[in-house]
Amino acid sequence: MGQNAIDRDNLDFLVFDWLGLEALFAQPLFADHNRQSVAALLDLAEKLAADRFLPVYKLSDRVEPAFSDGEVTVLPEIAAAHIAYAEAGFIAAPFSAELDGLQVPETVQTAAMAQFMAANVAASAYGMLTTGNARLLAKYGTPLQIEHFVRPQLAGQATGTMCLSEPQAGSSLGDIRTRAVPDGSDALGARFRIIGNKMWISGGDHDITDNIVHLVLAKIPEADGTLPVGTAGISLFIVPKWLIDAEGKRGDRNDVIVAGLNHKMGYRGTSNCLLNFGEGTRFRPEGQAGAIGYLVGEPGQGLAIMFHMMNEARIAVGLGAAAIAMRSHALSVDYARERAQGRTSQQSKEAPPTAIIEHPDVKRMLLAQKCYAEGAFSLVLLASRLIDDRTGAADKAAFQDADLLLGLLTPIAKTWSSEWGVKASDIAIQIHGGYGYTRDFDVEQLYRDNRLNPIHEGTTGIQGIDFAGRKLMREGDRALDLLESRVLATCRSASDLSGLAVHAHRLEKLWRQFHSVAKALPSVDREALLSNATELTDAFGHIVVGWIWLDQTVLIMGDAARSESRLAAGKRAACDYFYNHELPRITQVLELARSMPRVIADTPSSVF
Amino acid sequence: MGQNAIDRDNLDFLVFDWLGLEALFAQPLFADHNRQSVAALLDLAEKLAADRFLPVYKLSDRVEPAFSDGEVTVLPEIAAAHIAYAEAGFIAAPFSAELDGLQVPETVQTAAMAQFMAANVAASAYGMLTTGNARLLAKYGTPLQIEHFVRPQLAGQATGTMCLSEPQAGSSLGDIRTRAVPDGSDALGARFRIIGNKMWISGGDHDITDNIVHLVLAKIPEADGTLPVGTAGISLFIVPKWLIDAEGKRGDRNDVIVAGLNHKMGYRGTSNCLLNFGEGTRFRPEGQAGAIGYLVGEPGQGLAIMFHMMNEARIAVGLGAAAIAMRSHALSVDYARERAQGRTSQQSKEAPPTAIIEHPDVKRMLLAQKCYAEGAFSLVLLASRLIDDRTGAADKAAFQDADLLLGLLTPIAKTWSSEWGVKASDIAIQIHGGYGYTRDFDVEQLYRDNRLNPIHEGTTGIQGIDFAGRKLMREGDRALDLLESRVLATCRSASDLSGLAVHAHRLEKLWRQFHSVAKALPSVDREALLSNATELTDAFGHIVVGWIWLDQTVLIMGDAARSESRLAAGKRAACDYFYNHELPRITQVLELARSMPRVIADTPSSVF
Repeated sequence: MGQNAIDRDNLDFLVFDWLGLEALFAQPLFADHNRQSVAALLDLAEKLAADRFLPVYKLSDRVEPAFSDGEVTVLPEIAAAHIAYAEAGFIAAPFSAELDGLQVPETVQTAAMAQFMAANVAASAYGMLTTGNARLLAKYGTPLQIEHFVRPQLAGQATGTMCLSEPQAGSSLGDIRTRAVPDGSDALGARFRIIGNKMWISGGDHDITDNIVHLVLAKIPEADGTLPVGTAGISLFIVPKWLIDAEGKRGDRNDVIVAGLNHKMGYRGTSNCLLNFGEGTRFRPEGQAGAIGYLVGEPGQGLAIMFHMMNEARIAVGLGAAAIAMRSHALSVDYARERAQGRTSQQSKEAPPTAIIEHPDVKRMLLAQKCYAEGAFSLVLLASRLIDDRTGAADKAAFQDADLLLGLLTPIAKTWSSEWGVKASDIAIQIHGGYGYTRDFDVEQLYRDNRLNPIHEGTTGIQGIDFAGRKLMREGDRALDLLESRVLATCRSASDLSGLAVHAHRLEKLWRQFHSVAKALPSVDREALLSNATELTDAFGHIVVGWIWLDQTVLIMGDAARSESRLAAGKRAACDYFYNHELPRITQVLELARSMPRVIADTPSSVF
Repeated sequence: MGQNAIDRDNLDFLVFDWLGLEALFAQPLFADHNRQSVAALLDLAEKLAADRFLPVYKLSDRVEPAFSDGEVTVLPEIAAAHIAYAEAGFIAAPFSAELDGLQVPETVQTAAMAQFMAANVAASAYGMLTTGNARLLAKYGTPLQIEHFVRPQLAGQATGTMCLSEPQAGSSLGDIRTRAVPDGSDALGARFRIIGNKMWISGGDHDITDNIVHLVLAKIPEADGTLPVGTAGISLFIVPKWLIDAEGKRGDRNDVIVAGLNHKMGYRGTSNCLLNFGEGTRFRPEGQAGAIGYLVGEPGQGLAIMFHMMNEARIAVGLGAAAIAMRSHALSVDYARERAQGRTSQQSKEAPPTAIIEHPDVKRMLLAQKCYAEGAFSLVLLASRLIDDRTGAADKAAFQDADLLLGLLTPIAKTWSSEWGVKASDIAIQIHGGYGYTRDFDVEQLYRDNRLNPIHEGTTGIQGIDFAGRKLMREGDRALDLLESRVLATCRSASDLSGLAVHAHRLEKLWRQFHSVAKALPSVDREALLSNATELTDAFGHIVVGWIWLDQTVLIMGDAARSESRLAAGKRAACDYFYNHELPRITQVLELARSMPRVIADTPSSVF
């Protein structure tokens, strides 16, 4: 059967049955929605992705954004896709009615976004970043900043960026050197002149919209001209490509120039720039060098505020990885059904070749791929459902619980999805054999696109430090307890179902093993902990995804109307595969983590 | 320190100390060689690779082979590199003195080839294929075939290909449809007219040399015109691009046309063609359609003879993967020493950023990468040493022992090196962060080049079937016993060394666990076996590589002159990492393999 990248039957199961979306409609914020309105939005996303994003997938890889005369131009088809996306209301969808948004739950926004990312992740990045940028400003901006920097983004007249990294400061933002020098104030807020270089800026320049709203991290110099040390000295600024006056009229071109484009392995449809702020060589707004920026929040709060968008972006990266993995899987299933090669051990030599989907090793790959792709997608949807829980929390305790659980799962949603999503795309190449290694098939590009995900918005190593070195240490107990109650509830339900009790037993054992490792972390030497953090994070991800598979399988097996469906059979097969072939190795990883070996920490760098 | 892709100190250790190359010089075949002559050859390889192959690495990725007017042209720099390689004697090196070869041991040829593959795997493919083609013909060809098809290849006047796959028959060669119709005979042998399509032909056309010697698998039709079923009906033919007469004079252009080039993810410097034989549209040799081919060996022996070249190619694929992995690692070490970012947990916030090689998670990645890269390289060198053992065997029993052990290790040398070699290249991107994802850094291309290796010359799944479904079943006992005696000898030596006894204990336990699984295989249901074959093959590879690491570490720790060297410290650190962080999970894989679960085999394809 020709499958969509994201099977709608499965998506409905995940969103409505597994995550209980309809419960949200009782909340005032989401009162305008119902199952039908959500279905209509998901229909629209599916159609728009298929009509405007997918058809230019290959083309946007072959024809990269161009840079000449200081300006970046992108494929007209990419620009048109973004505008269509904005006009259909997807940028504004999660915003309040006041801002002409639809107030859709985050879970729905995520489900819709998955369609665009599966179709063309690079083309969808402009929209994703714009929503994130506008959300941050809607929360922390002044009314006039919202008027002139949020509304145009929601309307598709401007896009947003996040300008964090610098050539010498990627993972270590405390070392940024971009300076923000006070320059009075105007109706839009306290003004500064920004001087510095920002690297890896996705959507940093383009000709899709007239204006671009950069959110820039910079440091306000001390009285002696030096920059404050570390992250505490970071502030956040709005730096528009074109200045805007109090009435919203366009003024001077700001002093932001494109120093060059990065030429990437994949993800080529998104322009990715080195931006120089405040050089004064090409643009001198109001007659003076220095990019004009407006302070957001208070000085020194920059990183804390930026984390609002960064956490959202981390989940979005996980979503992109999962969506690409879903399409990689769907294409693999289609190919494996069509491609005839060899015979199974039950067939005679004279039989015509069988579809490769019948070969045991191909089934193995498809099962693994399904576990990674759907597991990652489910994990990201769960994170977005926690955002909705937090948004609609009845009291402070409920808010904190949702926030803690979300905090615990965010590095997992980012990094497990990225690492194993790439693996799903890798398997897609393998299933396609030699054909999959050619640029004639999408899986080759899907792999290259997906390979960015373990890198951007914090590498896998950085997520491991966040998870094992921070999340588990500081707030681990409460957050783990919250998750534990969900995990053990699933185990109890599974214990009653034939064939699943053995999985429940394994999961509970692994969970308790992990929990005891986690409790011992505060007494572990820091270098030893850091050298084992990535493995531990990955092991936790596997346990969480194992829980998700069991939870979904229990749910669908217990639903009389669906328990005999193809969807149920697929969930059951994936669950059985994951528990038999994937989870057992986690036991050894946790066994190792219990002793926190110093093998790596004690290795001097001189041995290499 | 700026390192070569393949550290010479390490290479010398591997070849001379670990593999005891000098013992071979006592054999008449290798009597002309000594440590100095081998060193000179390796020096030459290193220099030629650095001077001619490496400088065009990027360029050969950007500028792919071109196809116009039916002819393929490659970069002049690639052509020049190949000719320089041939002129330096590397194609002929392993051949007999009669053929103007140097009679170098295979171990040395492999060590030399590694330099070229590390520098530019795609450019080196022409040479690798030519040596393999010429070797097959030197063994199975007639004297006149050797004169006109082997000598020109050794002299760099022709290159060789292997034409096996067809668009509908990749892994399943029994289904090829290329026909060979008898067409009399001439001085060069029994003639046939070849009609059919061959896919994925590396070096299938180019303008590097005048002539190309294709080795083509085809079927001679039965009396009723049908093709014989299965692999038993396959014969092998020499099909030159240009016909040659008995005196070696060039005649008509043969009826072989290029239908198109494949555009690959990487490995772009090697032309890769769809070839149509016998269409008669452009060339009609001797006035008639049909490519003229000369039978090699007897009818029906084609696949058996071709396995001579295929087994060599499988080891060469493992070597390519290992060599790319070695360069990926060397570049990663260099970058990790140069790139400053963040601080270790022992440094204060005010300290200047540290080189990332000091970060625990970066050390973890470098250790893993070193284990995969050097482990794979050692494994392939070991396989080539077994070829030398076989060549120089004193009697039939010694020949058979070397052949059995080589047969057991060949699928591992191909597939473990490919799978984990790619992983080493993947880690290189991760260590380089965002920079590694750009085409400005070689690691991005190294990854793309390396990704072919788990596919060509038999995918990982096919190697798993060969290993678990054939090698372990048919000849497993004797081959495993031979390896066991080596493994246990290493364990005994390691037991006496401080800190290594624990590894010896683990290795012996894993080995016995694997051996008992292997012994039980003949009674396992075939579909269940095939569905677990890839995991089992990978586990065996890990055990073999674990043994290799321990064996090398024991050797160097016991060498007083070297036990305090950087080389020894590196071996020891990698060994400790591999035994602590990698091998434990194999226990679980073997635990699983013991029960040979039917989870995958029983999954119906309809669930996807």
